[in-house]
Amino acid sequence: MPLTQARTMPGVMELLPLDQIAFAEMLDTIRRNYERFGFLPIETPAIEYSDVLLTKSGGETERQVYFVQSTGALEKGEDKRPELALRFDLTVPLARYVAEHEHDLSFPFRRYQMQRVYRGERAQRGRFREFYQCDIDVIGKDELSIRYDAEIPAVIYSVFRDLSIGPFTIWLNNRKVMRGFFEGLGITDTERQALALREVDKLDKRGVDYVRDTLTGEGFGLSTEAAKKILDFVQIRSHGHADALAKLEALGQGSEVFNQGIAELREVLTMIRALGVPETHYAINLSIARGLDYYTGTVYETTLNDHPQIGSICSGGRYENLASNYTKSKLPGVGISIGATRLFWQLREAKLIDTAQSTVKVLVTQMDEAQLPAYLELATQLRNGGIATEVVLDGGKLGKQFKYADRAGIRFVVVLGSDEIAKGTVTVKDLRKEDQFEVPRAELVRTLRVELEQAEAMKI
Amino acid sequence: MPLTQARTMPGVMELLPLDQIAFAEMLDTIRRNYERFGFLPIETPAIEYSDVLLTKSGGETERQVYFVQSTGALEKGEDKRPELALRFDLTVPLARYVAEHEHDLSFPFRRYQMQRVYRGERAQRGRFREFYQCDIDVIGKDELSIRYDAEIPAVIYSVFRDLSIGPFTIWLNNRKVMRGFFEGLGITDTERQALALREVDKLDKRGVDYVRDTLTGEGFGLSTEAAKKILDFVQIRSHGHADALAKLEALGQGSEVFNQGIAELREVLTMIRALGVPETHYAINLSIARGLDYYTGTVYETTLNDHPQIGSICSGGRYENLASNYTKSKLPGVGISIGATRLFWQLREAKLIDTAQSTVKVLVTQMDEAQLPAYLELATQLRNGGIATEVVLDGGKLGKQFKYADRAGIRFVVVLGSDEIAKGTVTVKDLRKEDQFEVPRAELVRTLRVELEQAEAMKI
Repeated sequence: MPLTQARTMPGVMELLPLDQIAFAEMLDTIRRNYERFGFLPIETPAIEYSDVLLTKSGGETERQVYFVQSTGALEKGEDKRPELALRFDLTVPLARYVAEHEHDLSFPFRRYQMQRVYRGERAQRGRFREFYQCDIDVIGKDELSIRYDAEIPAVIYSVFRDLSIGPFTIWLNNRKVMRGFFEGLGITDTERQALALREVDKLDKRGVDYVRDTLTGEGFGLSTEAAKKILDFVQIRSHGHADALAKLEALGQGSEVFNQGIAELREVLTMIRALGVPETHYAINLSIARGLDYYTGTVYETTLNDHPQIGSICSGGRYENLASNYTKSKLPGVGISIGATRLFWQLREAKLIDTAQSTVKVLVTQMDEAQLPAYLELATQLRNGGIATEVVLDGGKLGKQFKYADRAGIRFVVVLGSDEIAKGTVTVKDLRKEDQFEVPRAELVRTLRVELEQAEAMKI
Repeated sequence: MPLTQARTMPGVMELLPLDQIAFAEMLDTIRRNYERFGFLPIETPAIEYSDVLLTKSGGETERQVYFVQSTGALEKGEDKRPELALRFDLTVPLARYVAEHEHDLSFPFRRYQMQRVYRGERAQRGRFREFYQCDIDVIGKDELSIRYDAEIPAVIYSVFRDLSIGPFTIWLNNRKVMRGFFEGLGITDTERQALALREVDKLDKRGVDYVRDTLTGEGFGLSTEAAKKILDFVQIRSHGHADALAKLEALGQGSEVFNQGIAELREVLTMIRALGVPETHYAINLSIARGLDYYTGTVYETTLNDHPQIGSICSGGRYENLASNYTKSKLPGVGISIGATRLFWQLREAKLIDTAQSTVKVLVTQMDEAQLPAYLELATQLRNGGIATEVVLDGGKLGKQFKYADRAGIRFVVVLGSDEIAKGTVTVKDLRKEDQFEVPRAELVRTLRVELEQAEAMKI
């Protein structure tokens, strides 16, 4: 039979084991922090009914959806939309989950979910058709205190602090402030607000003059004064806690919704501080809008200070009603998402993430085939002590076995020769420290555990 | 807009958070043991090219495959087989992965993979269309020592020991022994061997007489003597290590392939013992065949002694060549698979698995809203100490807050009233032990960590 070419479709990230370990460590760090803040895990099926996933049908989303059909369904040659599809995010499945299990959940319901989602993106470098999303959301029943909005930045801080990928800033805004501000200028239509914001987004690329000209040009027809106010407003950034409060103060009073937005931002800032987030790591940024048709209050973005080109690595916000397509209950919520696959890819491109060391910590070498039972016993001792261990079963020259360990990223190599057997000891070579030592067999597990725990604590 | 009914398709397992935690703990136990034995993680995309997945096209597998199409592909109205499909197991993706990355991998390549697979099964209780498989395989280049076959039962033992779901037995056979035995009876055709084995499989349900009658009946036409030999052979089970060796000895000599099979089984048994697997937990069972067109040497099954109706919970074996569809390299291997979704479901049905305690360990209650900053600070202290903590942000009566913790499976409730604040202490209520104590704030984290570590060590 002719060979089939072994290949994957474009837009997926498939890793070699040591990179997979690095990626898994990143996901573990995210998960650990989500759990620390009291979020509970859920998983939903990758395949859902199309009518459930695509309640807001049509539009960009539906163009990107992957539909799913069994052979039977294909053979029926249905000309209607297939019954099943792959999830394209974790928000729609969450809405469905909460509506379906409403009576079995306690509210506020804090959930985290870290699963893959699927989008039929155009094949292009850095665009993924399959990627992990790592989401947290707090869902209230009928209402949800603004205080929950303040906990989210504390989670973001904790995650990225532990990921150790350099200094970062959590940017805060509130859609009510933005809405109130635009309404104050007479731009009450959400669609027009969105258009203005889209122009404002071009500030970095096209410069102030270009954007001012567009806003005052024929299409928009804003006064020069209004355009200036918008440009001044969206360029507001704070530096430190006191400055953030001062800049909010300086905005003065406005409409009811404006004042409410300011009050909310102020409360969020105060609580973030009480939660111990250093003031170097959060700031207000009045240009942040996020999905205009979805978010209604606090909105978040997060950027790496030294790598602005990467863009926001963690975003989200407050929404009015999660699951209005599935239930009459009002379910307000607040949440964020980390696109972990893209983030990992970008961090590797930026050389901020290295290939990991192996999950295997010890290689038990084979000096003498006749001693194989002793090597196996030693491996069992290490494994029962919780230390991931590989035994050389095939033999071969000791030098080659050492080289294998080095290339495979295994830190410790254990040698048990006739000398050591006579003395009841083992020789351990530490390939990282380029050091070697001899320990009594009974102390091997304890010694290695101490070394490994120290290495973990020091992140080396 | 009318509401869409929130529902999932049949054949998926969606869990409430505390059950999800129990399931995640099961997966973690499996992963931890796979890693302990030196297996490295990989993940492959859920969507693959159909021609890659379905190299052996036609047959039962293709009938169960879910095909995937983007809107664009659907609109083209292709009448040929869709280009993309969802994986239906982890073996085909492993073969593709190893062939694709052959030159970047070290052999023997030990990999573990724990991901979901998809099959268009008929909707039926206990049948899943989406389920986790947890696989390990060791892949050799050109050859792979029989010693690797012996490490696999040590992994199985370690996994199910740690899952604590009662006594279990790892059953061993070798396809060469079986093939040699049938050939000795003049049944050389693999197809006929398979038919005979299928009849033999009915032993438990139909009894010895029924099976003997079929084998000696018109369709088969075996002599009474041959039928008796088969029935005696497949009923061989060992009890303890010495008995296993004795029963192999008693089979005597046969063809070359038969003798080789016996020698392999003997070596596997010897090494399993050297690896410290208790002889109560492994046995030979000469009826075990597994996939007849796939496995060529050692084969494994695992059953729970007290729940035989569950069937094999972990199976696999040795195969000749993993990736002959994708590469000319010869890649022999040995591996096993645990169908974790089905296993979890069955263990819950059999009441062998409980709903887990929450991942959240501490609830910081809110006695006095004015003290919220102090509660937040306390929560941060606990979280920085690695303890998953939820703070009551909304307030409400203390009794209600306690009830919430109890229902949510949160073990510790922390109370910080004006008394405690004055003394610099906190009161901790242990809902599991129904006990309460007061500690200085500075010692809270340390105290709770000790309690939690003890609980984990004692699995309570």
